[in-house]
Amino acid sequence: MAYEQLKEDVWRANMGLVEAGLVVLTWGNASGVDRKAGVMAIKPSGVDYEDMHPEDMVVLSLATGELLEGDLRPSSDTPTHLVLYREFPVIGGVTHTHSNYATSFAQAGLEIPCLGTTHADHFYGAVPLTRQLTREEIQKDYELNTGRLIVEYYQQKGLDIMDKPGVLVPYHGPFTWGADPEAALHNAIVLEEVARMVFQTRLINPQVKEIPRVLLDKHFKRKHGPGAYYGQSKT
Amino acid sequence: MAYEQLKEDVWRANMGLVEAGLVVLTWGNASGVDRKAGVMAIKPSGVDYEDMHPEDMVVLSLATGELLEGDLRPSSDTPTHLVLYREFPVIGGVTHTHSNYATSFAQAGLEIPCLGTTHADHFYGAVPLTRQLTREEIQKDYELNTGRLIVEYYQQKGLDIMDKPGVLVPYHGPFTWGADPEAALHNAIVLEEVARMVFQTRLINPQVKEIPRVLLDKHFKRKHGPGAYYGQSKT
Amino acid sequence: MAYEQLKEDVWRANMGLVEAGLVVLTWGNASGVDRKAGVMAIKPSGVDYEDMHPEDMVVLSLATGELLEGDLRPSSDTPTHLVLYREFPVIGGVTHTHSNYATSFAQAGLEIPCLGTTHADHFYGAVPLTRQLTREEIQKDYELNTGRLIVEYYQQKGLDIMDKPGVLVPYHGPFTWGADPEAALHNAIVLEEVARMVFQTRLINPQVKEIPRVLLDKHFKRKHGPGAYYGQSKT
Amino acid sequence: MAYEQLKEDVWRANMGLVEAGLVVLTWGNASGVDRKAGVMAIKPSGVDYEDMHPEDMVVLSLATGELLEGDLRPSSDTPTHLVLYREFPVIGGVTHTHSNYATSFAQAGLEIPCLGTTHADHFYGAVPLTRQLTREEIQKDYELNTGRLIVEYYQQKGLDIMDKPGVLVPYHGPFTWGADPEAALHNAIVLEEVARMVFQTRLINPQVKEIPRVLLDKHFKRKHGPGAYYGQSKT
Repeated sequence: MAYEQLKEDVWRANMGLVEAGLVVLTWGNASGVDRKAGVMAIKPSGVDYEDMHPEDMVVLSLATGELLEGDLRPSSDTPTHLVLYREFPVIGGVTHTHSNYATSFAQAGLEIPCLGTTHADHFYGAVPLTRQLTREEIQKDYELNTGRLIVEYYQQKGLDIMDKPGVLVPYHGPFTWGADPEAALHNAIVLEEVARMVFQTRLINPQVKEIPRVLLDKHFKRKHGPGAYYGQSKT
Repeated sequence: MAYEQLKEDVWRANMGLVEAGLVVLTWGNASGVDRKAGVMAIKPSGVDYEDMHPEDMVVLSLATGELLEGDLRPSSDTPTHLVLYREFPVIGGVTHTHSNYATSFAQAGLEIPCLGTTHADHFYGAVPLTRQLTREEIQKDYELNTGRLIVEYYQQKGLDIMDKPGVLVPYHGPFTWGADPEAALHNAIVLEEVARMVFQTRLINPQVKEIPRVLLDKHFKRKHGPGAYYGQSKT
Repeated sequence: MAYEQLKEDVWRANMGLVEAGLVVLTWGNASGVDRKAGVMAIKPSGVDYEDMHPEDMVVLSLATGELLEGDLRPSSDTPTHLVLYREFPVIGGVTHTHSNYATSFAQAGLEIPCLGTTHADHFYGAVPLTRQLTREEIQKDYELNTGRLIVEYYQQKGLDIMDKPGVLVPYHGPFTWGADPEAALHNAIVLEEVARMVFQTRLINPQVKEIPRVLLDKHFKRKHGPGAYYGQSKT
Repeated sequence: MAYEQLKEDVWRANMGLVEAGLVVLTWGNASGVDRKAGVMAIKPSGVDYEDMHPEDMVVLSLATGELLEGDLRPSSDTPTHLVLYREFPVIGGVTHTHSNYATSFAQAGLEIPCLGTTHADHFYGAVPLTRQLTREEIQKDYELNTGRLIVEYYQQKGLDIMDKPGVLVPYHGPFTWGADPEAALHNAIVLEEVARMVFQTRLINPQVKEIPRVLLDKHFKRKHGPGAYYGQSKT
């Protein structure tokens, strides 16, 4: 079996979605890439998580989408993942879930504003909401167009993909990413928790304001970039 | 013991309701049929789930409701299940729960609108709410009339029972069905999750609109019917 | 050790409160009586549930409140329980919790209206809210007066204690009872679930109406009294 | 290994935060002090709870903040903890979490009013909200200033730190304390549960009033101070 480590990492991120309570039934998927090998591994479509093993992960060519290894069909969201990896070389893992608070914001057609330091530690401002797909984009190459929609959003805004490592697609749900599948999973967990707290905060105080910019900067930069001092030194 | 496989499948679907957090105490029930044998198996009435085994499932004649096997009284909702199987030959499993979000919509007297793709993947539009039973329908043959009420709804609307594999009965709660007990359980889990997300979505944005028709079509048909491409090939 | 069965039953009901998610830390308590022996057993005060064993249950005289057996102080709510047993000979078990939805209604100063059949299966109409205690009743014999308050409510309304086997005390929380500790626990679980669903139902539809009387009668009497047909025959 | 008991107690309190569902990922931290030895032990920064052992706790000088023992960086919130211990000699344990109801109140910019006896048993009135930090306090010595902010609040109000053993910092979240790490953990659990119930109570009844003073006094003093009669005698 080739790509063992990649498959193991991707499988682990998928199981992490279940452990974190972000998926119901067979919903959701996580993927990862091996940039050197030019491949992506992703969860098979519609398979029970409890029956799923590392060797069930499906391996595809990052360049062509051609199936290279695996006996099962890849996730139906595969074209979305491929577009993200192709356009954003810095990302190494992607997740998609229907986790219920984040999806509720996607269904409500609203971005998730940054109301506190929990959010500011991980997303540099609001978790964005893309535009809706057009009728034509839905009817043909739907999953591919979902990926393009996300890419378009970040490019038009001139946003660094890692400053906001997750996004909501209207009527649908969240996608998150990171340097590897574990980081993408991590951001899926954060996004759901942050969404839940915005939901609660606004019910407590509908007039709530966004976090002051100085506090947003302090927290995001405490964890990211050259001045970071949170966590253990990586060396 | 006859009907072993059927009892096993029905027992498993009942236990699945517990595992999915859809039941409290002894509430809820799942059933299944063996069309060739002309029988239905269903959970016994008011028995603790943890003390329940496959052999405790009660087997009745689909045609007459006569008890064929089992030492315990069948669920008090048995007449509801029997009516559904008799009127809809395509269904092989039925569940009834008081799962708390779906039941809250039933108590609120409102259908569950389709606000996103999670819903659209499984129900082709809103999860319906039947009319209320009349005084006479409540006082005599209550459980039988509950079944007839559901049948009436689908027949009057000319709805395909499998396009919307679940319904709410006012002041009461949800019923779901499917090709077999496992599919009925699956739809009970989906219905509760979908209800929860509508609850949350409307608290986030009370002016939220239903999913566009083109997206509803795309998602439902991605999973159902001749053009389906989600999941693994069944052959 | 005397009263072994009673202590075992009371301990089991207390542990059942934990398993059902109705208690946090050392909050809550369940008790039971042996009418023939004239004794009540109750949880000790402020002891961790995980360190608690049947032999830690404290046994007191039902008539005098005198401590008969046990090395620990009884629950501080003991006088409340004693009053209920003395005034209502039909009850054999009592619980008190701060379960969070029921307590939220008690804090809100509102009874829990009957909005559906889940509720109607167990409580014959709204779960009542007593009046508030007076300053004097709080400052002297507080726990005793809490019990008297509940008794006063049922007596003044001419209510059968078993038709509504639970009540809310304002600013405080729920008390439930039943024929034995297990039944009292059962009603505590039902009360919390029912409170949760009223909470949700009213957020979905603030104009929701109570269940029609005919449906309330049907469901309550399906489970209680001479015409009951739910569950297994007790003979 | 020195300070074994302290490290064990602090580790246990940190794990207790996880068991109580108060933390997500690596968020949150608990600490404790040995006043005789003049040291504080605290969770390391950004380490997975499941990989954390008592020997990973970081020990620092209470007077200087100098690292005395441990291979890992201490929590980034260390300066906040140190200030609290230095200013309030009566406390022996501190926690900080982003538990979601308490954090939602912090994000909403509102204190948590005392609406019931659950709250009154543990906090003598509302759980306070401090003022916001200034721009300068955020940009330089942020974590130290967070501690000073809390100290300032209690000193300016002339509040006994043990009457209200927890506080909310705007846009951020709760800090709690107690006589030892276990008591601080205990108060973190209470604070979250109380916050949840205020959230629910106000959605049920937006016009809800605070608990009457006489009932607040009764409950708080039933558990604290010379007239306490809740729990087991400590002798």
